[in-house]
Amino acid sequence: MGSDPTVTFAPWEIAVEVPHGTTLLEAADQRDVGIEALCGGNGLCGTCAVEVEAKDPPLSPLDPDEKTVLDEEELAAGYRLGCQATVEGDVSAFVPASSRSEGEIVMTEGAEIDFEHDPAIRRFQLAFEGPTLEDTLPDRERVIKALTEEYGLDIDTVDRVALTDLPSTIRDGKTDGKFRVTATVAEETEILGVDPGRTGPAYGLAIDIGTTTLAIYLLELRTGEVEAVDSKINPQSTHGGDIISRVQYSTQKPEGKSELQREIREAVNDSIDTVTDEADVDPQSVYEAVFVGNTAMHHLFLGINAGAVAATPYVPANRARLKTTARELDLAMNPSGAVSWLPIIGGWVGPDFVADLLAAGVLDRDETVLAIDIGTNGEIAVSGPEQTYVASAPAGPALEGAEITHGVRAKPGAIEAVSLDPETWAPDLEVIGDESPMGICGSGIIDVVAQLFLVGGINRRGRLIDPEDGRGRIREGGDGSRDFVLVDAEEADVDEDIIVSQDDIRDIQNAKAAIQTGTNVLLEEAGIESVDRLVMAGGFGNYIDPESAKLLGLYPEVDVDAVEFLGNAAGYGAMYALLNRDAKAEADHIVSAVEYVELAAWDGFHDLFMEAMYLPHRDFDRYPSIKERVEAAQGRPAEEL
Amino acid sequence: MGSDPTVTFAPWEIAVEVPHGTTLLEAADQRDVGIEALCGGNGLCGTCAVEVEAKDPPLSPLDPDEKTVLDEEELAAGYRLGCQATVEGDVSAFVPASSRSEGEIVMTEGAEIDFEHDPAIRRFQLAFEGPTLEDTLPDRERVIKALTEEYGLDIDTVDRVALTDLPSTIRDGKTDGKFRVTATVAEETEILGVDPGRTGPAYGLAIDIGTTTLAIYLLELRTGEVEAVDSKINPQSTHGGDIISRVQYSTQKPEGKSELQREIREAVNDSIDTVTDEADVDPQSVYEAVFVGNTAMHHLFLGINAGAVAATPYVPANRARLKTTARELDLAMNPSGAVSWLPIIGGWVGPDFVADLLAAGVLDRDETVLAIDIGTNGEIAVSGPEQTYVASAPAGPALEGAEITHGVRAKPGAIEAVSLDPETWAPDLEVIGDESPMGICGSGIIDVVAQLFLVGGINRRGRLIDPEDGRGRIREGGDGSRDFVLVDAEEADVDEDIIVSQDDIRDIQNAKAAIQTGTNVLLEEAGIESVDRLVMAGGFGNYIDPESAKLLGLYPEVDVDAVEFLGNAAGYGAMYALLNRDAKAEADHIVSAVEYVELAAWDGFHDLFMEAMYLPHRDFDRYPSIKERVEAAQGRPAEEL
Repeated sequence: MGSDPTVTFAPWEIAVEVPHGTTLLEAADQRDVGIEALCGGNGLCGTCAVEVEAKDPPLSPLDPDEKTVLDEEELAAGYRLGCQATVEGDVSAFVPASSRSEGEIVMTEGAEIDFEHDPAIRRFQLAFEGPTLEDTLPDRERVIKALTEEYGLDIDTVDRVALTDLPSTIRDGKTDGKFRVTATVAEETEILGVDPGRTGPAYGLAIDIGTTTLAIYLLELRTGEVEAVDSKINPQSTHGGDIISRVQYSTQKPEGKSELQREIREAVNDSIDTVTDEADVDPQSVYEAVFVGNTAMHHLFLGINAGAVAATPYVPANRARLKTTARELDLAMNPSGAVSWLPIIGGWVGPDFVADLLAAGVLDRDETVLAIDIGTNGEIAVSGPEQTYVASAPAGPALEGAEITHGVRAKPGAIEAVSLDPETWAPDLEVIGDESPMGICGSGIIDVVAQLFLVGGINRRGRLIDPEDGRGRIREGGDGSRDFVLVDAEEADVDEDIIVSQDDIRDIQNAKAAIQTGTNVLLEEAGIESVDRLVMAGGFGNYIDPESAKLLGLYPEVDVDAVEFLGNAAGYGAMYALLNRDAKAEADHIVSAVEYVELAAWDGFHDLFMEAMYLPHRDFDRYPSIKERVEAAQGRPAEEL
Repeated sequence: MGSDPTVTFAPWEIAVEVPHGTTLLEAADQRDVGIEALCGGNGLCGTCAVEVEAKDPPLSPLDPDEKTVLDEEELAAGYRLGCQATVEGDVSAFVPASSRSEGEIVMTEGAEIDFEHDPAIRRFQLAFEGPTLEDTLPDRERVIKALTEEYGLDIDTVDRVALTDLPSTIRDGKTDGKFRVTATVAEETEILGVDPGRTGPAYGLAIDIGTTTLAIYLLELRTGEVEAVDSKINPQSTHGGDIISRVQYSTQKPEGKSELQREIREAVNDSIDTVTDEADVDPQSVYEAVFVGNTAMHHLFLGINAGAVAATPYVPANRARLKTTARELDLAMNPSGAVSWLPIIGGWVGPDFVADLLAAGVLDRDETVLAIDIGTNGEIAVSGPEQTYVASAPAGPALEGAEITHGVRAKPGAIEAVSLDPETWAPDLEVIGDESPMGICGSGIIDVVAQLFLVGGINRRGRLIDPEDGRGRIREGGDGSRDFVLVDAEEADVDEDIIVSQDDIRDIQNAKAAIQTGTNVLLEEAGIESVDRLVMAGGFGNYIDPESAKLLGLYPEVDVDAVEFLGNAAGYGAMYALLNRDAKAEADHIVSAVEYVELAAWDGFHDLFMEAMYLPHRDFDRYPSIKERVEAAQGRPAEEL
């Protein structure tokens, strides 16, 4: 049989060589591929089921446990139990979301929710007399009358579908001579459903559709508790990882738009199934969903032509918050449920950033605030004393580790944090999953560049210094380009040195300059020089080391105490919109109140950008604490750097 | 080949024996089955196409004309040209609506439309600047701004589906540097569609869904012109001709409700196809539909559980006017089109009667008005000086000729009018299609009873007089029952005498007493004894001879000049609601302003009913003109009748 077979785990494409007879679960454990195994690998629970698509894969034959635990549909689809199936040859296994204990790191924890809890959807218990020949008030008006008399509500609408079964549901609720029902009401004005008797709580969904990942939170609306969470890769990714190529797919391919819409809708519905299953909640009792995401994801989810978003002047189809019913979008919840997408500021400042601002309460603060959501596209807001300005900075994917020589996503084997010894520049690495390193993810590459700047490996223009002074870690290629060697090949899980090239450093400089320039433009528009508070929104902001970001000049000088990390602020904003009925109007207010600044059309943008290519900025005196720190680290005045 | 073959024409099931070699068209002509033949039977126009479902029917082989005129689909479905195909054996042919020159008589002509013409749906031409980097207003808000600036509209909504293509449609409309589009706007507040360039007019549908028939009117909204009309049998009829049995089908059979909903929806969509085809109108430019019909048809169309409508206390699911979009109901028009059903007064006083009252402007008049819509269920309104009262009278089907010994629908061969010679009682008949009579339709049976009363064939209690005095036309059965012989068998197109039995007369008396009692209850509620004006609404009111109705006491004494016949007032009301944007609010006002009187719960109803069983009423003095007329006709005082 020769060499050991290789198992490749999708969707991460993590490969591992294992001896014949190793179980898939054991193989996964060797690379920290997180497969759930609640029964301890005894073939009882089925949580380790993985999908093996190949016909007659080189695995042990199905054993009786597998035939018992897996159902016919799963068996037909090629599912196997990771703890029972043993490897007999090269094989690829897909780990479905339901079987993952960890894996790709997707932020799903929002910050603490701290606001007045007053959901738009509420349930009301009613008991009223039924009709007689003397009192023939129709059912709809009878329920409305009861809501008015018992709770003072002023109902103006009853959902069309909710009406269809109203005659039978109220009669089904007849006990002790009265009609006893539970009415589910939105905004105290619209009846979305009537159920016989006394029912359990109503639920809502906060849904964050990112370009890469999709996150869903199931909340009990009355208590505000998060009952279940699911996240998965946005399936549209296969038609383009970045927004532009995905939008092009939607506009250039016949049926592309409807294909993308169908894919993301099915993924959302799968996730709704997952969270309602997990929390043992009837999807019919899910009565609201609030969506956030960037403008392109908004358009693609709703089937709106997104062509104009991806081409200059990058105009969205709408600014307004959209409201519809679950049935209009074929969502796997109550068909009368209220569905909304938060409103849009611009083609590149979407509902996700509106949710950030909403969650952070940026417009409500008395202090001046800078809010940044770092991603391929960085969204920035500066809230001055009189006006809030927002902009979108095209940072590119470098800050996320993409298009970097050894860039990888945050996954087992990725270097996520780096510090360099001030003298030897020997790196101290943190690797996800405590494995041999196989690449550098976004937070790691930012650390490397920041550390190189701190120890003097690059000058203020980002140029790697002469290899002679490079502690043996800077080397020159034949074409005159220079690389910084982070990990030698023998210590790495790849066949070559893990390096950071001069071009990689340039990419990081460009990205940080884009965000820094956007910030500086907005500060200038707001007429202020410094901010009282910095809000880092977005999952990525959570992973970046704030000191590294500060060293690079990614944000202006502020006290460490004045920095807030809001994690998945977009999801948090969606939850806020779900749990507080005024929040949607607040979101509308944000959109109408802020002033959008188009950087591409801003006079002097280019000059500011050039200044921002320096580390941390051409004008070092604007960053006194960094200047002091770098001078101390290198033992020489800033002028010599 | 023996005897002559028989051709049976569906849907009327009219059978005719013809010699071999007769064309289907000639066969049809013999029985006045109206088949269109625009080209004079020369095989050119195709208007005489009929469907012959049998495989290998006993007809002449397809001739070249038929292969030319009929298309493949028609040929595959068994269509033949009536003017070419000759009969070689017993055969059944269905005459599709498109080939009928007459046939079942369905009122489709509304009265003259005479009201302020101001449709809710209007189209606006726009020309505006496109976005630039300096002006990134989103598309939706840009179109709204143009509508506000150019026309002063205050738009608050853009239909979700209309938004999906907005980015491409406005850009497709770019000419001479400006975006030129046509916006279709409802109520000056909601954008339902945006098309590039300058488009043609918008259209609307007025749709009247009767228990038996369905009528659709396509109107150009700007001009108010009726562009095309279609009517057909309500396909739900196969699951019960009357409301009660149809509702039972919907509630008792699994999937019954959705089956009935699907059937009527498909019939409506077929009719929409027919009228848009006929008028050469793109269904996408049909932006509104207003529906009327009785409460049960309303519920069954919308998929609302109708069980409570058909059982005491006969309560509808809703009173309110329902509004939705065409796509919610899968209608074959613009998916963003506005669809509404007029509101409901009660389980047996539905949107159709609201439309009657709306069309007749009953509540707006300074005079006192009695409005009656006669059908299986008679709806009655009395509009007094202060209040309008409405009631539903369960007349039963007798007035329409159903459940009468020789009752038939209004169709060729039906006796539709009768007068009796005062001396000999010899009948003078009017038969639809000028054929040999084969039965009596509703207007005919009312004539017979009224004439019998006038000439003295029945007494004031409706009892047929002694056969000895019966001019040879009254005969007694063995069981003591009496019949009036209207047509001898040899003159009839059936194998027996066409008679009117004592029971038939009772049925008519019961029906008229129901309506008369309802009227009298409402007059009493209103505190008035006579009305200034009588409005006969509904198709059936058009066919009844007003003199006969008056003789029976179907309505109170009013001047002939004070009677208005509104024909298909319900359809007319729907058209009004389509062409005048205030009309829907007027309909809402009607529903909230009228007082519904439940006859079954009304004290003293039984006594009033017994009085109304007399002809024209126990108190003859309340009908002085009838008293005088009958006395004159019979030459004896009323006391002796």
